[in-house]
Amino acid sequence: MTKVRAVYKFEAQPNSGELSISVDEVLTVIKESGMEGYILSTTRMNTTSDEKHEIIVNSGPCWEPIAQPYYCVVDKPKKESKLKGLKSFIAYSVTSSLSGIQVFVSRRYKHFDWLHEQLSNKYILTSIPPLPEKQVAGRYEEELIEHRKNILQLWVDKICRHPVLSKSDVWIHFLTCTDEKSWKSGKRKAEKDEYVGGNFLNCVTVPAEPLDVADVQVETFSRCVRSLEDSVRVMYDRVKDLHIRLAGSYKTGWQKLAAGFAGLANSFELDRTDYITSALKECAKVYRHIADQHEESSKKDVDPLMDCLYTYRGLLVNMPEIISIHKVFSIISEHEMEKVRRKVDTVNYAVLAEIHFQHQERGQDFKKMMSVFLEKQAAFYQDISRQLSELSVKFQNS
Amino acid sequence: MTKVRAVYKFEAQPNSGELSISVDEVLTVIKESGMEGYILSTTRMNTTSDEKHEIIVNSGPCWEPIAQPYYCVVDKPKKESKLKGLKSFIAYSVTSSLSGIQVFVSRRYKHFDWLHEQLSNKYILTSIPPLPEKQVAGRYEEELIEHRKNILQLWVDKICRHPVLSKSDVWIHFLTCTDEKSWKSGKRKAEKDEYVGGNFLNCVTVPAEPLDVADVQVETFSRCVRSLEDSVRVMYDRVKDLHIRLAGSYKTGWQKLAAGFAGLANSFELDRTDYITSALKECAKVYRHIADQHEESSKKDVDPLMDCLYTYRGLLVNMPEIISIHKVFSIISEHEMEKVRRKVDTVNYAVLAEIHFQHQERGQDFKKMMSVFLEKQAAFYQDISRQLSELSVKFQNS
Repeated sequence: MTKVRAVYKFEAQPNSGELSISVDEVLTVIKESGMEGYILSTTRMNTTSDEKHEIIVNSGPCWEPIAQPYYCVVDKPKKESKLKGLKSFIAYSVTSSLSGIQVFVSRRYKHFDWLHEQLSNKYILTSIPPLPEKQVAGRYEEELIEHRKNILQLWVDKICRHPVLSKSDVWIHFLTCTDEKSWKSGKRKAEKDEYVGGNFLNCVTVPAEPLDVADVQVETFSRCVRSLEDSVRVMYDRVKDLHIRLAGSYKTGWQKLAAGFAGLANSFELDRTDYITSALKECAKVYRHIADQHEESSKKDVDPLMDCLYTYRGLLVNMPEIISIHKVFSIISEHEMEKVRRKVDTVNYAVLAEIHFQHQERGQDFKKMMSVFLEKQAAFYQDISRQLSELSVKFQNS
Repeated sequence: MTKVRAVYKFEAQPNSGELSISVDEVLTVIKESGMEGYILSTTRMNTTSDEKHEIIVNSGPCWEPIAQPYYCVVDKPKKESKLKGLKSFIAYSVTSSLSGIQVFVSRRYKHFDWLHEQLSNKYILTSIPPLPEKQVAGRYEEELIEHRKNILQLWVDKICRHPVLSKSDVWIHFLTCTDEKSWKSGKRKAEKDEYVGGNFLNCVTVPAEPLDVADVQVETFSRCVRSLEDSVRVMYDRVKDLHIRLAGSYKTGWQKLAAGFAGLANSFELDRTDYITSALKECAKVYRHIADQHEESSKKDVDPLMDCLYTYRGLLVNMPEIISIHKVFSIISEHEMEKVRRKVDTVNYAVLAEIHFQHQERGQDFKKMMSVFLEKQAAFYQDISRQLSELSVKFQNS
């Protein structure tokens, strides 16, 4: 869904199908999704698709769960080059356990980017998680590469866990194709895929029962997504602040106290009060160490939380598009409805299944994200406490 | 010792005893201490003194230790008024265990101030700890009153522990006098005391052995005091920064995260993901509590450390005066020396005894101050860790 602003005025001819616009009018343009073609059966499919997805009903419509869960690990980012060193890039090792066998491939960012585009075009009812931002400056700095690797890991995790995406042909091609030639043919095949956008729904089997359009449920989901989008954005900014503070002013604060204690130690050394001198020196050392631990904590504890929130922010930003598709079809007239009811049911089944999945995932993701973050922070403060306590005893026994 | 800057130029007549000065020249003026009178026996004493102090020799000269240590507690600052409410002031309860009996008196700041002046005039070889700063604005704010009480407590502690000051007549008068009439007569007596400054040394008995003037020891002490003065000042400033940060940016940081979590909780509430909503609400609550604990820590942990450092800064600032007195008398000529050797010995014995005492005290004071501070900070971080750990479990089990 994109917002555009009209630059010229245009007066439509009556009954021409044209649209009148005035200067500065803002229009919302919904991406041409092929959904109309699917609903009205005007798109003729020339190929068949191997992908089959099923929606079942438990407490409500949901995607058939993944039969054989598997993992995928993005690791060992390595600088490689081609054209005799003229072009250099980072290659990631992508290891997966699809169908029980461990498969390893090497992929560049541009491959992820291409895959992201294919998935976004094909599965318009599903919010595809965001890739790390494409940064050119300082592209090969170790920390940045590590950071991107972590976000890519979250990205593949999300896809592995999604009942539809995890079975996607193009994704499986990405995970398993090892030779250049079949990579290229698979790439061409994916790019020519007819079952994208609305037409993807031809691969989806839904229950025979007609569906009561659950507007309330979609409305709730929509309100929740808008609200979450805001609160995740706010949370991201605040966690980013924490990140900056831990590695900045907090660290400096401990360092300054360390320097203060070191100064006191020097003065007591002049005074030959050895017992207090050595305790103060130890104190300065421990405070410097705790200062460094603050920076470490920003990387070890806060970075992963920021990465999770980044991924969620991206997921949520794409969510409203799903909802708008649902809305478009809930305003089709009663007469037209009769003719296309089964197709509209499929769309709605898919929307509800996706809502169900996202709802479930979200709770689990935040549960895990928060418990891991809090556990790490607890350990961080525990370690500070232990060091200060040992120092206190050192002074007591000095 | 005061530094003054000459505003006018003055040309001295030769052999007139006058001093030539040029504009902007900085002169160091040593307080008229009566030390000359004592050394040269030119001061005639008209009264006798009840105070007797003895210097003994262990590994070096030191004051005879306190025979019966006692405590003194400054407590229950209370707003009182006189002249039918026209004048209001804070009265502190001062309880002491002198000679084994608990004695309670009520004293105002101005009484402490008067006592401080008497002690400073009488015991010029001893560094008298500083009183809290006299602040008029917001004089009756609870926190400020509490703060002053704490510094007064440190002040009386220092006096109780000093082998000379703890036996001082004027101090004992302050501690024990309960009726207005004898208070006034004691006050007059103290103000007319002849045994002040140099003449106080008439109350001091020193070993018969002539003293090898230990210039090296005094020089070391002097270097150490100058160095400590600097490092305690730096430390004070940094601990003050910590105080400000704990109650300011650190607290705000936790509060902002708390608000972020509360926002997330609201969004999840819309989504009816109850388990995560309640965990996030708890998280916001705990983060707010930890924010408050940061401010508390600035009061409970950092304030006492600042008060100790404040007291030490004051003690150290007064120290150089002792040293300068020693220096003045170490440059007396050999001929004059013969006549006054016994008196000079007494001065030097007293200086060395005082150096010994201060050296010993300092180590013990810093040992206690640091171990208490670190213990409290360890408990503070331990408590944060415990709360975060409990939160983590709450998310895990949600």
